[in-house]
Amino acid sequence: MKIGMIGLGKMGYNLAQNLLDHKHEVVANDVNRESVKGLSKYGAIPAYSVEEVVNQLEKPRTIWLMVPAGEITESLVEQLSHLLDEDDVIIDGGNSNYKDSLRRAELLSEKGVHLVDVGTSGGVDGAREGACMMVGGPNEVIQRVESIFVDTTIENGYLHSGEVGSGHFLKMIHNGIEYGMMQAIAEGFDILDKSPFAYDYEKVAKVWNNGSVVRSWLMELTESAFSKDPKLDEIKGIMNSSGEGKWTVETALDFQVPAPVIALSLMMRNRSLEDDTFTGKVVAALRNEFGGHEVVKK
Amino acid sequence: MKIGMIGLGKMGYNLAQNLLDHKHEVVANDVNRESVKGLSKYGAIPAYSVEEVVNQLEKPRTIWLMVPAGEITESLVEQLSHLLDEDDVIIDGGNSNYKDSLRRAELLSEKGVHLVDVGTSGGVDGAREGACMMVGGPNEVIQRVESIFVDTTIENGYLHSGEVGSGHFLKMIHNGIEYGMMQAIAEGFDILDKSPFAYDYEKVAKVWNNGSVVRSWLMELTESAFSKDPKLDEIKGIMNSSGEGKWTVETALDFQVPAPVIALSLMMRNRSLEDDTFTGKVVAALRNEFGGHEVVKK
Amino acid sequence: MKIGMIGLGKMGYNLAQNLLDHKHEVVANDVNRESVKGLSKYGAIPAYSVEEVVNQLEKPRTIWLMVPAGEITESLVEQLSHLLDEDDVIIDGGNSNYKDSLRRAELLSEKGVHLVDVGTSGGVDGAREGACMMVGGPNEVIQRVESIFVDTTIENGYLHSGEVGSGHFLKMIHNGIEYGMMQAIAEGFDILDKSPFAYDYEKVAKVWNNGSVVRSWLMELTESAFSKDPKLDEIKGIMNSSGEGKWTVETALDFQVPAPVIALSLMMRNRSLEDDTFTGKVVAALRNEFGGHEVVKK
Amino acid sequence: MKIGMIGLGKMGYNLAQNLLDHKHEVVANDVNRESVKGLSKYGAIPAYSVEEVVNQLEKPRTIWLMVPAGEITESLVEQLSHLLDEDDVIIDGGNSNYKDSLRRAELLSEKGVHLVDVGTSGGVDGAREGACMMVGGPNEVIQRVESIFVDTTIENGYLHSGEVGSGHFLKMIHNGIEYGMMQAIAEGFDILDKSPFAYDYEKVAKVWNNGSVVRSWLMELTESAFSKDPKLDEIKGIMNSSGEGKWTVETALDFQVPAPVIALSLMMRNRSLEDDTFTGKVVAALRNEFGGHEVVKK
Repeated sequence: MKIGMIGLGKMGYNLAQNLLDHKHEVVANDVNRESVKGLSKYGAIPAYSVEEVVNQLEKPRTIWLMVPAGEITESLVEQLSHLLDEDDVIIDGGNSNYKDSLRRAELLSEKGVHLVDVGTSGGVDGAREGACMMVGGPNEVIQRVESIFVDTTIENGYLHSGEVGSGHFLKMIHNGIEYGMMQAIAEGFDILDKSPFAYDYEKVAKVWNNGSVVRSWLMELTESAFSKDPKLDEIKGIMNSSGEGKWTVETALDFQVPAPVIALSLMMRNRSLEDDTFTGKVVAALRNEFGGHEVVKK
Repeated sequence: MKIGMIGLGKMGYNLAQNLLDHKHEVVANDVNRESVKGLSKYGAIPAYSVEEVVNQLEKPRTIWLMVPAGEITESLVEQLSHLLDEDDVIIDGGNSNYKDSLRRAELLSEKGVHLVDVGTSGGVDGAREGACMMVGGPNEVIQRVESIFVDTTIENGYLHSGEVGSGHFLKMIHNGIEYGMMQAIAEGFDILDKSPFAYDYEKVAKVWNNGSVVRSWLMELTESAFSKDPKLDEIKGIMNSSGEGKWTVETALDFQVPAPVIALSLMMRNRSLEDDTFTGKVVAALRNEFGGHEVVKK
Repeated sequence: MKIGMIGLGKMGYNLAQNLLDHKHEVVANDVNRESVKGLSKYGAIPAYSVEEVVNQLEKPRTIWLMVPAGEITESLVEQLSHLLDEDDVIIDGGNSNYKDSLRRAELLSEKGVHLVDVGTSGGVDGAREGACMMVGGPNEVIQRVESIFVDTTIENGYLHSGEVGSGHFLKMIHNGIEYGMMQAIAEGFDILDKSPFAYDYEKVAKVWNNGSVVRSWLMELTESAFSKDPKLDEIKGIMNSSGEGKWTVETALDFQVPAPVIALSLMMRNRSLEDDTFTGKVVAALRNEFGGHEVVKK
Repeated sequence: MKIGMIGLGKMGYNLAQNLLDHKHEVVANDVNRESVKGLSKYGAIPAYSVEEVVNQLEKPRTIWLMVPAGEITESLVEQLSHLLDEDDVIIDGGNSNYKDSLRRAELLSEKGVHLVDVGTSGGVDGAREGACMMVGGPNEVIQRVESIFVDTTIENGYLHSGEVGSGHFLKMIHNGIEYGMMQAIAEGFDILDKSPFAYDYEKVAKVWNNGSVVRSWLMELTESAFSKDPKLDEIKGIMNSSGEGKWTVETALDFQVPAPVIALSLMMRNRSLEDDTFTGKVVAALRNEFGGHEVVKK
């Protein structure tokens, strides 16, 4: 089918190539004109503005946004809501908060425009070779556009997960689980690292990837990471996060679901962002107050 | 090679068959005579006592224990320490605490007997078809017996992980990671279950197993579990544990490694063993005391 | 001074009496006419509508809201924003979220009306006899109304904590700390309850209140609770929560502050609201899948 | 009564003075001869060896050990077991693990010697002016020696808590609760510290100590600490721990009691001992592997 693609960053560029490989027509747009030109060499139809994307598509149109969640997605949806017509479809492939997707779907529905929310996993390689996509939206709309999800995912890597919002919700939870799994693996190696035994961590990850209960893609990545830097001596243990873990915890609190593992995974990341903590200062000061325990002066 | 196998439960029986398949000679013993007879039909040499096992092997002997950790392992090691001679090898394939293995190795070394500690993962099927084994012991001893580990594991599923104790230690940490991964997955599905969306959990697990970051054997098992009981309506959420998770947390405390995810995974299991908690009663009573908040009477 | 009091529930009624004791004039209003009449016997000026409250006060007016946070506070602030004039003051003594207070202050400031946010602790008795109040608002406004805070709090129990919002923020954090302290105390008694020793919990709390590091009002309440029901046999351990703990955790996440103790206190409360958990079912099912561990059927 | 006191460190010296104030006879011993001489000026009978202590007491003897838990207590109990006679009493006032106390009581009972275990709270000042003591031991033994506990504690600050072991157990739990309370307070101030408001922390602690739910000795100490160093700028947030918190968590695990708040309080202390973590390195490396997220190079 013919589809507009707005946002040609790493993910969008690869996904557009993936679509072209599968004989879809892609009207490609990005704020960076070079990316548009680059992709046109692969057969994409260049569009140098959002209006051009809209104008080069026939009704009912399908436009895929692959841009950062938050303000950029918000302003593009707003802009498109004025340019699009009844029955057109906007696919949001970014990591939007499902609450935003629900709100935007409501807004767009006033004009008869449909929102389809796609949670995408599998990274940049997945976008190019075959990703994992969790897609929310009404049945009839999904049926119209489903071929593009089937074509750009690996076998069994596409799920129409339910109503609009359900795709981004599922991606959020996926990332929450990912936080917990990563922290679990990391804690395990941290204990190994303090043990009296002289383990070869690459070999440990490798044996665990072959026949053990914890074999997983994340453990394969662990093996890969240790193969490059056996003790991770070259990097600092600063664990950034990009939002979905926080949303997962907030959602768990909203639904009164205890989710201590996901919450603690996030909190230990936040802890790693600080060299010293005010919490630590207060506890150290209190120990000094009641027990005369020495504090470490700066 | 020729090897004694003491303990023909699910794991030991399968492992013995696995050894026989690979042309090893197995002297098989169990407290259950039927198991001994059963295995002898597959070609094992029957032994109806520990002494018989010892007597049917030539020096230097190799005896594999596949019995429950704790008292049974302890008493067998004790018994064997009197029956074995210098340079004989005891392989402990059970889930022993690494501290016990270190202690037993020390004890046995006084008689020149070697202990090899094997952490085994992969379950009953793994024991039969090819397991994952993490093996601790001195190089020269391991070289002598290594063929039996190579033959009974899947490709790359065997690791000589270091000195004695390192195999059981590694298995313990493996299980700790497993606790964290399982709890992370479970929390994720619990939040889904409270969400406004009507997910098909088997399909969710399936899509996550194809191309996503959280793809893993545990997620495949999740898919399998939901395929049998879509909402797990038939079971209660009681999470037992068998010891290694607790040891992992204790070890983390011993080494002063923060391991909140593994610790909380275990504590939520313990929480699931109780219908009501004294902690909850105290907090409810306190809320009533200071705020007049109503308590729920029994 | 002369002050309007809207909301004559337990807190507002007692606070109004407290104000009357201190020779303040109180124009009292509530949706319940009986409460208004009741208080007028103590010398309050009755007002049977919000408009009456406004009309019976001279400019610049001061109106104290002691109503449930959320919708009721929102609609009263909205209503008052139309009735009040420049330089009038609304005091919000409820447990409002500080973000709402910041937003409302902004809105009211467009009309020159001031918001003063008061976090109140000490319960119903405190409202009557002398509470603890943390008050946010601009210096010049606070100076005008400060006497009512000084008069209705116990000695040193009043703090002008900073700009508007700072009072409710401080109350929120106070409650977060309270959650953590209560859970810590409760966990301690839970371990005692499983111990081999036959403790008398009232006596334990009592000795801890006399000379120990953990002596505190909450421990005094613990002593009181056990004096009435020695093993808390009569109540269920259901721990409800009223919102501020959740806000504290959300705020901690917003500021990237690790706050595991407050977060876990809340999550264990949420856990207590469920008899069985989906998390538990998933873990139990997984243990069955990989290890053949038995599940408990419903 | 006449009592031997072995161990004249800060706690023992003050406690001995406290006993002398209350007209008890004290036979005082320490490895440091100066301490013995110093205390003899206050009326203590000097003893320059353990044997001298024993010899200067009449049967049945009572000897209070106020020495570091662990090896020193162990070796003194061992030594005294050979010197003492039936019906003599050893009081262990140190922070011994209750399991050690149970074991030692068992050992001593073979010779008819009694162990009384005393958990002491209230710090050095408490030892001098009146401490809080939780005391385990058989009724008849406690009755014989009870006057020394009554005299050296503040009013209601003494509890005979049950059989031997129950005193040290109670002190352990007390400290576990203390860990949780301190961490809760500290997390609260940490969030304040990241807030947009410019709080005066000493004043915050002060207002919370007057009428609020969280008023407590620890909050008074918090007020005191901030009065000396308003932002705790001078100290580092390194939170050491002295063992009882760890024992509490281990005991919670032994009894399968979920104690997330106490466990996390301890784990955050352990986290504060490290500048960088291996856990953090592993997570950072994994994020780089799957998402291309940049790592921070050392």
